[in-house]
Amino acid sequence: MNLSSRTYAPINFADKLAKFADQWQPRVIAELNDYQFKIVRIEGDFIWHDHPETDEAFIVLEGTLRIDFREGSVTLGPGEMYVVPKGVEHKPFAASEVKMLLIEPAGTLNTGQAGGERTAASDVWI
Amino acid sequence: MNLSSRTYAPINFADKLAKFADQWQPRVIAELNDYQFKIVRIEGDFIWHDHPETDEAFIVLEGTLRIDFREGSVTLGPGEMYVVPKGVEHKPFAASEVKMLLIEPAGTLNTGQAGGERTAASDVWI
Repeated sequence: MNLSSRTYAPINFADKLAKFADQWQPRVIAELNDYQFKIVRIEGDFIWHDHPETDEAFIVLEGTLRIDFREGSVTLGPGEMYVVPKGVEHKPFAASEVKMLLIEPAGTLNTGQAGGERTAASDVWI
Repeated sequence: MNLSSRTYAPINFADKLAKFADQWQPRVIAELNDYQFKIVRIEGDFIWHDHPETDEAFIVLEGTLRIDFREGSVTLGPGEMYVVPKGVEHKPFAASEVKMLLIEPAGTLNTGQAGGERTAASDVWI
């Protein structure tokens, strides 16, 4: 349970996004059992990776997100979501900044099994 | 994994909502491991209930949702979310129709431990 739950305050996506400007660093805004809701700003290309242990949900708040797969891609706008199944290689791409919500188990790394220099801290709250 | 994942089609909330008009019957639109994303239209008062085994996430898409607790309430508009902790009694209320997204474990009943005539089927896909 997060502080917002105890104080009966809504969690407002725009308010949370206004608190930071850096890209590729997800911020946790809520927990649901052992899952977390994270907001993140991304722009440009990410790296190919997969999450061997978990599916990963993307909900776009602003902008246009393309998720590339080895054999195709899906493009999401505001009000759209997609679930990348566990073990499926994917690479997010945003031609201009995308603001989005991720839902995944606590501790899930942004780079999955790939690791490397693009790996962000996985439990930064805002 | 749902069909949309395999076909690389985004899941569009407005498109899914346009497929039904009845209230208080959640429809599953996506799965994330053993969790489900459900969309639902609600209007008026629900019943007091809790979910002894799980937290429950609400994201408002359209309208104004009030969630009453025994000692307070939280009001959510579009772009806002709230997580009701497991075991906490709550009662959703909407003065006019609210369209919202629920995220909770598959099999979670809308009436929780309370049961009764307002209990909806828990695994209706759209």
